Amino acid sequence: MRRFKFPSLIGLSLAGTMLLQGPAAAGEWVDLTYDLSDEAVFWPTAQRFELRTDFEGHTDGGWYYSAYTFTTAEHGGTHIDAPIHFAEGKRHVDEIPLDQLIGDAVVIDVSERARDNCDYQVSIADIKSWENSYGTIKAGTIVLLRTGFGAYWPDAEKYLGTAKRGAEGVAELCFPGLAPDAATLLAEARRVHAVGIDTASIDYGDSKDFAAHVNLMTHNIPAFENVANLDKLPAIGVYVIALPTKIRGGSGGPLRIIAEVR
Amino acid sequence: MRRFKFPSLIGLSLAGTMLLQGPAAAGEWVDLTYDLSDEAVFWPTAQRFELRTDFEGHTDGGWYYSAYTFTTAEHGGTHIDAPIHFAEGKRHVDEIPLDQLIGDAVVIDVSERARDNCDYQVSIADIKSWENSYGTIKAGTIVLLRTGFGAYWPDAEKYLGTAKRGAEGVAELCFPGLAPDAATLLAEARRVHAVGIDTASIDYGDSKDFAAHVNLMTHNIPAFENVANLDKLPAIGVYVIALPTKIRGGSGGPLRIIAEVR
Repeated sequence: MRRFKFPSLIGLSLAGTMLLQGPAAAGEWVDLTYDLSDEAVFWPTAQRFELRTDFEGHTDGGWYYSAYTFTTAEHGGTHIDAPIHFAEGKRHVDEIPLDQLIGDAVVIDVSERARDNCDYQVSIADIKSWENSYGTIKAGTIVLLRTGFGAYWPDAEKYLGTAKRGAEGVAELCFPGLAPDAATLLAEARRVHAVGIDTASIDYGDSKDFAAHVNLMTHNIPAFENVANLDKLPAIGVYVIALPTKIRGGSGGPLRIIAEVR
Repeated sequence: MRRFKFPSLIGLSLAGTMLLQGPAAAGEWVDLTYDLSDEAVFWPTAQRFELRTDFEGHTDGGWYYSAYTFTTAEHGGTHIDAPIHFAEGKRHVDEIPLDQLIGDAVVIDVSERARDNCDYQVSIADIKSWENSYGTIKAGTIVLLRTGFGAYWPDAEKYLGTAKRGAEGVAELCFPGLAPDAATLLAEARRVHAVGIDTASIDYGDSKDFAAHVNLMTHNIPAFENVANLDKLPAIGVYVIALPTKIRGGSGGPLRIIAEVR
């Protein structure tokens, strides 16, 4: 029913359909996951995704067979940061309750403001402005932040601010994130279940203290990073299912995240 | 409403609750996924799961940080076999439609018959016997086969029939699977969306031709293997969400599979 509360949203949705972009149709699954390959964007210091062929072709028995082995850093491509990634004693990736990874979501779109500013940080004012239109974010919501940088994937130069690897690359990172005080608002006042973003990190690229991570994760709130296709979702009426690889004792890992427009 | 069609099932459910086992409560998410660790059971010839520590502890900046890199064969732990695993030209893991991985499921329990027979193959008769009780399996159903061998995880000696590695281990594999003609029935006559099992392979351990794989996968039907906690699900009224790691061009990969009892 919520879809009919906001006539302007329906207008946007119709316009989007006509342009073959914008919000997905109700009842349709939208895959918010980039595929993992040697093109996937990883943090400059992280082991990138590598697929090794174990077998590929026809066997002596006559049937076709293919199988591969892969190596990857937990924190590359579309992935989850478990609370333990930045908060000692908090949950590992295999310990996050399913109820925290599945549920109603909202999309806060700051792409206009971040367009010409790769240092943009989603602010408390952005959240309150969104709430003026759609109502206060409910406890247990999954909050997705759309900066528009998803449009640059997988061009690291534009998406991360640099294609350089190693420490040299880290020094040149430039992409939007969530301001640390806004992270605290979402964690403490709104008691959200998780926060996702269409950039490589919930902290902006120039962060030196990763305070948005710390402020969320000390409250056992995970972050979803490199989330794809946020331009396909409306601001409200979204249901998210975010299932990470179940690594025992992991600090994160590949995330398959999908959404349904309701 | 279906839950009230079968009084005997409700009886089982109540008994299960009293024993702290058996079917889960309605509306509860059940995780059908084993965690990945160096204890996870892998095929004797496959690269087992390895987690390498990149950092774990307090940083110079004062905050805690942990991150890991992992290596794994696609086909170990709870995982999916994409159709391309055994059928040339069929879908890779990143190409399987979400609608095929999400939907109504049924559980066919043959654990009584497999208990003392690690060569047991789920037969056409088993499927028809199940259908006599619950009705013909509908097109698009996800079929989960419960052999009872999940109880042995992660004891490879009991679960696979051997703890040996390499070709020597392959020669001693003994665990239940799906009979090839029953796979054809599910694929061609029932047009199911996917088939899962609580053993290491949809073909039984002694198979030399992997015909159940071939018979499913030539129809673009994936298999879910090493599925956990099937003893927690009733025969019907189950909704499954099975989201694999999105490996570009992969033949399978780690699967996070969950179910809701409805």
